[in-house]
Amino acid sequence: REGGREMAAWARAVRGLLLDVSGVLYDSGGDGGVPIAGSVEAVRRIKASGLKLRFCTNETQATREEFVKKLQGLGFDISVAEVTAPAPAACRILKERSLRPHLLVHNDLVPEFAEIDKTNPNCVVVGDAAENFTYANLNEAFRLLIGMEKPVLISLGKGRYYKETDGLKLDVGAYMKALEYACDVQAEVVGKPAKMFFESALAEMGVPPQQAIMIGDDIVNDVGGAQRCGMRALQVRTGKYRPCDENHPRVKPDAYVDNLAQAVDVILRQL
Amino acid sequence: REGGREMAAWARAVRGLLLDVSGVLYDSGGDGGVPIAGSVEAVRRIKASGLKLRFCTNETQATREEFVKKLQGLGFDISVAEVTAPAPAACRILKERSLRPHLLVHNDLVPEFAEIDKTNPNCVVVGDAAENFTYANLNEAFRLLIGMEKPVLISLGKGRYYKETDGLKLDVGAYMKALEYACDVQAEVVGKPAKMFFESALAEMGVPPQQAIMIGDDIVNDVGGAQRCGMRALQVRTGKYRPCDENHPRVKPDAYVDNLAQAVDVILRQL
Repeated sequence: REGGREMAAWARAVRGLLLDVSGVLYDSGGDGGVPIAGSVEAVRRIKASGLKLRFCTNETQATREEFVKKLQGLGFDISVAEVTAPAPAACRILKERSLRPHLLVHNDLVPEFAEIDKTNPNCVVVGDAAENFTYANLNEAFRLLIGMEKPVLISLGKGRYYKETDGLKLDVGAYMKALEYACDVQAEVVGKPAKMFFESALAEMGVPPQQAIMIGDDIVNDVGGAQRCGMRALQVRTGKYRPCDENHPRVKPDAYVDNLAQAVDVILRQL
Repeated sequence: REGGREMAAWARAVRGLLLDVSGVLYDSGGDGGVPIAGSVEAVRRIKASGLKLRFCTNETQATREEFVKKLQGLGFDISVAEVTAPAPAACRILKERSLRPHLLVHNDLVPEFAEIDKTNPNCVVVGDAAENFTYANLNEAFRLLIGMEKPVLISLGKGRYYKETDGLKLDVGAYMKALEYACDVQAEVVGKPAKMFFESALAEMGVPPQQAIMIGDDIVNDVGGAQRCGMRALQVRTGKYRPCDENHPRVKPDAYVDNLAQAVDVILRQL
């Protein structure tokens, strides 16, 4: 197999895997989503192999608790402690810099910010707010930002769009760009492809980047982001993968695999 | 006066004036808006002077008919034939290139596109849709664009925000940027500051750019756009003008005036 040969040279050093979730483990949708064939078993095989494992998601439509519960319901062996997600990373930044956010996020994400002071906001945090991306809410976030002496916009990811079972949806990155342009500011992106986000996932695993492999469906945010941190990265041909990704002008995965199951096959064979 | 001295050298050649409308003639708002002090009389004085006059607006929340009716109601001497606006300019482009638009615009603008074939869209036209900028409508426009072999996005302006009596609102430019980013396309901007837009206003007046002066409140879209066409441009200190505009890194008006009335005073004195 193509993937197998290409990986042979460097995959033997692997000690830890980072998995994107949506589009790799399952396809999301209004109905809760469906597992991608072979992925439930693939996660079990990784855990049995002794490799370290971290789920590295830009999911911001639910708390980690709810997100994990949904995945467990689909059959995945996953716990909250194994998940690296943007909201907790944003909370660390907010605390460090004494920032009080106005939240433009999904209702179901709000509990992640329970311990953060949100009175008299001095920054805006935007996530994938979905139905909360109303004209009124966008104007409100904009007015707060433009009224700040030095506007601070923190974005929980910069994805362009994602696929749900009922079609493509604009992702947080599009709304981030709208606010950036209107206020003439640059957002600080938390979540993939931010370097700090991958670095904290690696630190949580205790594995250096040279011994870690990222597996994702997003050529820019998963593959490109991980590679910039010194990791190897595989792109699966599931989820939001499109054939034209293979001609991407700037990012080239270390290998392609049809899906997570094939990635795990090839990686475990090298050990 | 500062403005008077600075203009003396070149204002004698003037044969035509282009006036921005919102923020120069009146301040808009949910209640229909209020005239800016002295502007009704200033328009009358321009007409009495024999100078050519063109109203050059990026207004896309109403047809020209409704827009002119509102201004007449505020006391202005203005007719539809004197107005250069983005929607008719977009219609010319759509016809020339056989483009069939999906419209993401204000309900009250739709009649401007009455004669345009909108079946089976092969482009998206975005205007200041205001309350029509819903999550569902943005996703719909996005899906149409991303599904096109070569996405064509036409934007009726690229303003960042504007002021209404109840506060600042995101303008079409912010939503244009969101769609540009999500689809990785560059919008074609119709309306100010597009060169073609100013050129058609000049052609309608029959005045070359060297003999025309633009008067507006928007440092980039009015002043910068007109100057790039070879016109002189004054910024009024009304409407969306902010003191920090006077330190703009790229655009410097040929003169500042407190308001339209003062601009007309100074210009007519040179004749």
